[in-house]
Amino acid sequence: MKKTLSGIAASNGIAIAKAFRLENPELNVEKTTVTDAAQEVSRFEAALNQSTSELEVIKERTAKQISDKEAAIFGAHLLVLSDPELIGPIKEKIENEQANAEYALQETANMFIQMFEAMDNDYMKERAADIRDVTKRVLSHLLGVTIQSPSMISEEVIIIAEDLTPSDTVQLDPTFVKAFITDIGGRTSHSAILARTLEIPAVVGAKEAMASIENGTLVIVDGLDGHIILDPDSETVAEYEEKKAQYDRQKAEWAKLKNEPTVTTDGHAVELGANIGTPKDTAGVLENGGEAIGLYRTEFLYMGRDQFPTEDEQYEAYSSVLKAMEGKPTVVRTLDIGGDKELSYLQLPKELNPFLGLRAIRLCLEMPDMFRTQLRALLRASVHGNLKIMFPMIATLDEFRQAKALVEDEKAKLQAEGIEVSDSIEIGIMVEIPSTAVMADTFAKEVDFFSIGTNDLIQYTMAADRMNENVSYLYQPFNPAILRLVKMVIDASHREGKWTGMCGEMAGDEIAIPILLGLGLDEFSMSASSILKARSQISKLSKADMETHIDRILAMDTSAEVADYVKANM
Amino acid sequence: MKKTLSGIAASNGIAIAKAFRLENPELNVEKTTVTDAAQEVSRFEAALNQSTSELEVIKERTAKQISDKEAAIFGAHLLVLSDPELIGPIKEKIENEQANAEYALQETANMFIQMFEAMDNDYMKERAADIRDVTKRVLSHLLGVTIQSPSMISEEVIIIAEDLTPSDTVQLDPTFVKAFITDIGGRTSHSAILARTLEIPAVVGAKEAMASIENGTLVIVDGLDGHIILDPDSETVAEYEEKKAQYDRQKAEWAKLKNEPTVTTDGHAVELGANIGTPKDTAGVLENGGEAIGLYRTEFLYMGRDQFPTEDEQYEAYSSVLKAMEGKPTVVRTLDIGGDKELSYLQLPKELNPFLGLRAIRLCLEMPDMFRTQLRALLRASVHGNLKIMFPMIATLDEFRQAKALVEDEKAKLQAEGIEVSDSIEIGIMVEIPSTAVMADTFAKEVDFFSIGTNDLIQYTMAADRMNENVSYLYQPFNPAILRLVKMVIDASHREGKWTGMCGEMAGDEIAIPILLGLGLDEFSMSASSILKARSQISKLSKADMETHIDRILAMDTSAEVADYVKANM
Repeated sequence: MKKTLSGIAASNGIAIAKAFRLENPELNVEKTTVTDAAQEVSRFEAALNQSTSELEVIKERTAKQISDKEAAIFGAHLLVLSDPELIGPIKEKIENEQANAEYALQETANMFIQMFEAMDNDYMKERAADIRDVTKRVLSHLLGVTIQSPSMISEEVIIIAEDLTPSDTVQLDPTFVKAFITDIGGRTSHSAILARTLEIPAVVGAKEAMASIENGTLVIVDGLDGHIILDPDSETVAEYEEKKAQYDRQKAEWAKLKNEPTVTTDGHAVELGANIGTPKDTAGVLENGGEAIGLYRTEFLYMGRDQFPTEDEQYEAYSSVLKAMEGKPTVVRTLDIGGDKELSYLQLPKELNPFLGLRAIRLCLEMPDMFRTQLRALLRASVHGNLKIMFPMIATLDEFRQAKALVEDEKAKLQAEGIEVSDSIEIGIMVEIPSTAVMADTFAKEVDFFSIGTNDLIQYTMAADRMNENVSYLYQPFNPAILRLVKMVIDASHREGKWTGMCGEMAGDEIAIPILLGLGLDEFSMSASSILKARSQISKLSKADMETHIDRILAMDTSAEVADYVKANM
Repeated sequence: MKKTLSGIAASNGIAIAKAFRLENPELNVEKTTVTDAAQEVSRFEAALNQSTSELEVIKERTAKQISDKEAAIFGAHLLVLSDPELIGPIKEKIENEQANAEYALQETANMFIQMFEAMDNDYMKERAADIRDVTKRVLSHLLGVTIQSPSMISEEVIIIAEDLTPSDTVQLDPTFVKAFITDIGGRTSHSAILARTLEIPAVVGAKEAMASIENGTLVIVDGLDGHIILDPDSETVAEYEEKKAQYDRQKAEWAKLKNEPTVTTDGHAVELGANIGTPKDTAGVLENGGEAIGLYRTEFLYMGRDQFPTEDEQYEAYSSVLKAMEGKPTVVRTLDIGGDKELSYLQLPKELNPFLGLRAIRLCLEMPDMFRTQLRALLRASVHGNLKIMFPMIATLDEFRQAKALVEDEKAKLQAEGIEVSDSIEIGIMVEIPSTAVMADTFAKEVDFFSIGTNDLIQYTMAADRMNENVSYLYQPFNPAILRLVKMVIDASHREGKWTGMCGEMAGDEIAIPILLGLGLDEFSMSASSILKARSQISKLSKADMETHIDRILAMDTSAEVADYVKANM
């Protein structure tokens, strides 16, 4: 009997295979008193040994099938198992209190977990997660319960789980695991991101998968639209096999575009860049044929620490990105904190409406020493590549002038110190505040480029918090008001011989791309994994054709009308 | 020795007179044990009697010099003095605990004050304020300390005070009190508003007035620019006497314009309306020559209560405003709550960014029953005058269409019930969200009018919370981005034969008026007390002249540049 479920399409592709339920058994611990404490300690040591052998096998398989880097998590687990600071107190508790091993383990481990979690430090929080994972494994041996390891899977399956832990996900071998379905999670949860890295289809947030799918059930997972089909008939299987073949052909076609320029059928070239958060993301940009970095979000450098990064630490990070990009354009956005992004070591005032408050460039101009440190690091790194500096949340020309003056000032100081600085650094701004879009013509005379940040531009133009579900109906990328502002910005830049990019989610959107092409957008910056698909789409469109639709679209009344029109006509 | 201070100009005009310090003595109460409780009760009764006689005199003087309405506050105080529920427990406390009268009074009164204040009800909070005021008076008699009463002043003075209590302010007799200066408060504090009603000059927030000004010092108060001059020389007195004479001539000239239309030198007529909050504000509108109500904020009807106002209550309020306006245009804004405005009986979700959240029309469309009640009341009242209905916070055409459909639906229902509804009600929108300004051309085809709400439009266009001091530098009414949006709205309305008003603070601003006239604004709605001054200003300007400056202004870079240009050239 064919049955369907649906969830959030988290990773593209189609898979057809049998279900493998990855169960997470309840491990209930009760406190009992043991008569022979020495024997209970032996029982605990046996469970430790079993866990150790098991982890060594998993570690080895992971290293072979996935990577040494992913296997390292199990190295950390093995260290926990042999840590005398954890194991000692457990044995003492068994001996002194005549406690059963399960109870002694759980009580002691929980104490450490709570201690590490309270530390508000990402490294310590990871240690807490390791102890939690290891405790579960040892407990399962003490209780005689089997914990499944995805790395033990040796036939083609689709994993069904409530959720995947980090240690589950690193064990996923795409040779056998053809897809996964989880009941919880969203497009940006850890497991969804990993599925896209491994390029296996995934549907998350399916809610009832564990309740509806038995082991061995034949399952179709459509990671393109989030559909799940259980017990499909042969006709459905054939249909999806065709869809899968089509998708594979498409992927193969996209792969061919990796080293190609992005050119429309009428010979108009645009630049496809990627948004990144850390230097290690550059590998993915190049693998996916990125021609540029359109947005390097530097705030990650400032997060998960207990003090500001030093000028040298920043210099290293910026240099490594610029070197990796080998002369390709690299737009670095200066620090964008405040709003919903906080730093533990920077006490910002509590604000009634943080999205309308002291954030990004506003904060940097208030804290010039912090800002100057970042600018110096950027200027020093500029000799290693094609650096473009971009200021976020610019609302007035005054702000831009102040920020640019600080750049010029630091540049002069560095040069006076005999430190080399590139003399071809472009300085531009994010356009994410309505006033700046409306005033783009005056800005275009002074900035070197614009990059439109659609997430915030939409939020402010519609006066609707994009995180607030009560008003999510107002988050409308295709509202003609947004498109008109985008046009104002692009036109203004072109009149002054400058360029305009876009680094919001919209830049990689299938419906937005034909419109943006028609509006004349010069650079599209998106997540690296969307680049090849976008290149393929653009290479089939004619810019001149797209232009013919623009006047009609800008005169439309609603967002829905625009989306329908693009689907039908562009 | 001439000395100067400055503060916030809170009420226009100039006064020159001797200082009268209105001191607020510290009333320190200690607990002691009395030996003769009966004698202590007598001492308490004597203080009650003194307070009663004093209040009766003050009440009578206030009624004679100010108005019966203002005198009513002392009627309330007299009731407190004779309230057995307050007086009984105080006497019991003296008798049972052998407490001194001061302590028994203060403890008992504080209990009632706290109880009433906790009630979250404006009426009860007023009762708490009354008890506080009366307690102070009785305590002063018990302690033998004199409390000054402004109503006892019988020579021309300028009052100097830390702040004025409501009972102080109602006693101010403009015959003797020529001005006042307070150390604390702002332009919208209770005492500042009263000063404007009484038309006496005032400077508030002067910080050091009490510390610097002695009784009898000659003081000049310039309520036009917030300057205070102590011990002026005869030259300075002469200079300010001339300035005062000039201001008085100006006021006399303005008064002549009360029943005149508002017409430029080249014969272009505009409409000057007022913003009001309650039906009783209509008197001030007519006294100041208002030609319309450009914004009736209906939310006050919903506040200070414990449940929604009924349809009939609303009908009464709307009808009384429409009748009072005798056919003059009356724009009623439908309920604008949420954001920073809450109702105690309506539990709204807590939002991270309330200004970008579920408020105004968004909330009304979510709660259609509440909204329909308001619309029915408005429609029923429409037969009593010239009603125009205006929806706040419209971001998309969909929202306007939904709201308008509810009006049409309720109108049809009323007509089916045989209830008469005017057939000439205009339906318009506030333009306070950037998307709506940008899309004004599409809106103009469907709405009957626009009214630009500058406070919110500036806040969203600049992405800066207008209540947040950290970003107050971004609240820029003359930023060319704002002026360009205003132009888009006005032009769009005129192309469709519709009209545009403005009901934000900007509409009454001296610098904004020439620009708005040049942009073609049809209706200016402001606080009633600004109308005559605006009429005088407009009657001296030529619309054609103002138009010649617009292109230059809209091409400027910054808000400061625009303001400087207007001052120098328009």
